[in-house]
Amino acid sequence: VNSKKTVPTKTLGELADYIGGEVKGDPDRSIRGAATLENAGEGDISFIANRKYLPHLSKTKASAVIAGQDIEAPADLIITEDPYYGFCRVIVLLHGHRPHVKCGIAANTAIDKTAAIGKDTHIHDFVAIGRGARVGNECVIYPGVYIGPDTVIGDNCILYPNAVIYDRCILGNDVIIHANATIGEDGYGFATHQGEHHKIPHIGRVILEDNVEIGSGCAIERGALDDTVIGKGCKIGDAVVIGHGTKVGPHCLLVPQVGIAGSTTLGHHCVLAGKAAVGGHIKIGNGVVIGGGSGVANDIPDGQTVFGYIAFEAGKAKRAYMSIKSLPDMRSRIRSLEKRLAELEKK
Amino acid sequence: VNSKKTVPTKTLGELADYIGGEVKGDPDRSIRGAATLENAGEGDISFIANRKYLPHLSKTKASAVIAGQDIEAPADLIITEDPYYGFCRVIVLLHGHRPHVKCGIAANTAIDKTAAIGKDTHIHDFVAIGRGARVGNECVIYPGVYIGPDTVIGDNCILYPNAVIYDRCILGNDVIIHANATIGEDGYGFATHQGEHHKIPHIGRVILEDNVEIGSGCAIERGALDDTVIGKGCKIGDAVVIGHGTKVGPHCLLVPQVGIAGSTTLGHHCVLAGKAAVGGHIKIGNGVVIGGGSGVANDIPDGQTVFGYIAFEAGKAKRAYMSIKSLPDMRSRIRSLEKRLAELEKK
Amino acid sequence: VNSKKTVPTKTLGELADYIGGEVKGDPDRSIRGAATLENAGEGDISFIANRKYLPHLSKTKASAVIAGQDIEAPADLIITEDPYYGFCRVIVLLHGHRPHVKCGIAANTAIDKTAAIGKDTHIHDFVAIGRGARVGNECVIYPGVYIGPDTVIGDNCILYPNAVIYDRCILGNDVIIHANATIGEDGYGFATHQGEHHKIPHIGRVILEDNVEIGSGCAIERGALDDTVIGKGCKIGDAVVIGHGTKVGPHCLLVPQVGIAGSTTLGHHCVLAGKAAVGGHIKIGNGVVIGGGSGVANDIPDGQTVFGYIAFEAGKAKRAYMSIKSLPDMRSRIRSLEKRLAELEKK
Repeated sequence: VNSKKTVPTKTLGELADYIGGEVKGDPDRSIRGAATLENAGEGDISFIANRKYLPHLSKTKASAVIAGQDIEAPADLIITEDPYYGFCRVIVLLHGHRPHVKCGIAANTAIDKTAAIGKDTHIHDFVAIGRGARVGNECVIYPGVYIGPDTVIGDNCILYPNAVIYDRCILGNDVIIHANATIGEDGYGFATHQGEHHKIPHIGRVILEDNVEIGSGCAIERGALDDTVIGKGCKIGDAVVIGHGTKVGPHCLLVPQVGIAGSTTLGHHCVLAGKAAVGGHIKIGNGVVIGGGSGVANDIPDGQTVFGYIAFEAGKAKRAYMSIKSLPDMRSRIRSLEKRLAELEKK
Repeated sequence: VNSKKTVPTKTLGELADYIGGEVKGDPDRSIRGAATLENAGEGDISFIANRKYLPHLSKTKASAVIAGQDIEAPADLIITEDPYYGFCRVIVLLHGHRPHVKCGIAANTAIDKTAAIGKDTHIHDFVAIGRGARVGNECVIYPGVYIGPDTVIGDNCILYPNAVIYDRCILGNDVIIHANATIGEDGYGFATHQGEHHKIPHIGRVILEDNVEIGSGCAIERGALDDTVIGKGCKIGDAVVIGHGTKVGPHCLLVPQVGIAGSTTLGHHCVLAGKAAVGGHIKIGNGVVIGGGSGVANDIPDGQTVFGYIAFEAGKAKRAYMSIKSLPDMRSRIRSLEKRLAELEKK
Repeated sequence: VNSKKTVPTKTLGELADYIGGEVKGDPDRSIRGAATLENAGEGDISFIANRKYLPHLSKTKASAVIAGQDIEAPADLIITEDPYYGFCRVIVLLHGHRPHVKCGIAANTAIDKTAAIGKDTHIHDFVAIGRGARVGNECVIYPGVYIGPDTVIGDNCILYPNAVIYDRCILGNDVIIHANATIGEDGYGFATHQGEHHKIPHIGRVILEDNVEIGSGCAIERGALDDTVIGKGCKIGDAVVIGHGTKVGPHCLLVPQVGIAGSTTLGHHCVLAGKAAVGGHIKIGNGVVIGGGSGVANDIPDGQTVFGYIAFEAGKAKRAYMSIKSLPDMRSRIRSLEKRLAELEKK
């Protein structure tokens, strides 16, 4: 089973035209697959976007390489401004995104009579859709998905197996939910009274705007009173948890295992690296970058990059965290200073 | 789709009577919904439990506010001792908890003949229940749930879609399991011999006592030899992992992405903030609070609050962790001291 | 419901022969169950592999104990070189692994006509298997499992409820996937262009070699171009996320909530403790041990043990992290040194 065998062949010239690049080499060269510099072979195209991979470039067996500028390489080149994006488009052209089985409405589903299903939408076996729910056109709903009552799903969405969308949530167009993700479960909200924790009804919803992708095993809590909102174009990795009422601005990247507590707001184009955590009731500006494993306990202004457990400005923070290594040495130097100073003071 | 439209209207006086509070203002004022101070409008009731929100209070458009004492506000008040709990009860009264579809035993289930199902229990399509399993009265079992052989579930439990309960587990009454959570999978137990890891059979069970709530994507391991126990009234957030044989005392709060290794015991009323981690074979006392992202490697006595990666007493730990920022400065000051001292010593 | 009631009884001599140990005591003593030193009673066998448990040994009510050497105990002994492994084998003999219901191909499945199912393989209700998929012999596929098109599964595999295997993945023999785990979802790969994140097709696969066990709620991303590979005998705990294209060598232990980013390689016999994180494009050698909660940002050579957020050599790192406690004290001592030194310098 190798997806490369069935892909159509393109010439280097066709690919360059498609991505708006310039060929340096033979435009008639035939390209049938995309691969990394290390693993590419005859007929493959690869890319270089980072000087760190120059050693791989010099040894690549690729027939062609997409690069940001004219560069010494044992292969033909396509030169384009954004080689990684160009390469992404070439992979789409050559290999395409995952094809989906066109099953129509499968025989063995549990779709409430009052639910509305759009045109060219394919619903696999063992899918349950609640009353009043609406699913748009050209969606693919994989086996075992649950769509709760009154939930509304836009056009061209893909819900992978066993994804669960609770009631009254709203998904825009072109939304992808990966397997075993949960959208709209009750948030972590309890009123503690005389030692017992009383469940707060969650009357808010989850709203996923257009082009959002949610990774496997994610849990996006619905709001207690206000909605939880994931802005358009956000890409959320596996096993991310978003708290109730939190608003994530458009085009944010939340890498796997990130956690954001409730009632927090993020601006647009933020990047939270793996396992980063943000507390509740915090305001994160636009374009903020939070380093891997960091813990954010305070507001962060626009454009700042932070790092650390109790995160602060990343340049300083990385130096500070690297210095932890020296702590035992610093202690012994302080002890030695104290001893020497006491000696001097005695004199 | 707005749940507020269909809720019954109450007067402020009725709400005050219901929660045992005192009206300051017009007891006949009509209240139809609950909202935050920021988003409340005409006809909404809100609350204030934290002085931090006083600026929101002064600008609120709410018709009424629940407060702990007589306070200056542009709205009528209900004064009650525990305003957050009072507000919680008002939300329940006005909006209610999630209504569940009364489907009886749906057409398309796989319930073993030997399984026993209680009265007024609703089992949705695509639910599988193993042999010898028992489900109590007035439960709701959502689509795609799996209940393993010989598992026993009490009364008034809610199992959300695709939750999985392995064999021989025991759930008390009023237990809620959110979507895609797993209860009773084999623990992480392997005997390594000559470089290979041999699976240890897990003959223990998971016991969830009454009133436990488990978040989406959680994984509660069954015990290898002893049972894993989650005490009554515990509330466990999304994506929490509990190791085999661990005992969590009653009324603990485990916030999302917490992890507790195996054979650890927690007392009652502990709070583990987001992403906190506790090692194996550790004893945590009663009323212990563990800060977000902390790592606990040692026993903690009753009532202590800890923080930090290698956690210790929180007041000191927060100061210590904030000092990491100063490490590069401290190093250069030590260097400078050494130089100056050497100069003095030369003289 | 107590699994111990139905287990066959063995004599101590039979157990000793089975695990290759030597009886010290009565070889005819009847043993019917395995238990911890603390909870064992008459008829139970236990073990001691760690001196830390000597206090439990002295008070145990077990009828027999497996130990690494002749030792003072209130019970008969089996003496064997690797007592934990011996005990593991005894549990398997007395209690066995989980028995599975032999359902054949259940009535209510959605298996594509072109899928191939092996002999003595049991497929429960509500399982969906895509076109071209192959499932080997003697497998058990629990309810709600999804096996994507062209995925190949070896012999004697167990897929627990609601596990999801995307298309074109390869599972070896004797693989166990726990409930709600996801194998082969698209990796976290996006090309950002003019502020929008464009999805990179993931044409790589996930390959799980023989004897791999994957915990509940895990997410193993498929490769973008190259395959993601989990080597034979690896045991992966709950809620672990593995990035696209990462290669984990054979016999590694990844404890719950570990995260490894993409394009990283691990050697054989590595151990990553709970919540450890490894960045992308990193090379981890053979036999590397990474402490709980650690963050790895650089390559690690064979055999090293590391610890810390920005991990380094564990012995030093533990001392350094313990020293964080002293930071406020160190700062005030530096201040005091500066003051005293200034005094001296004035003279």
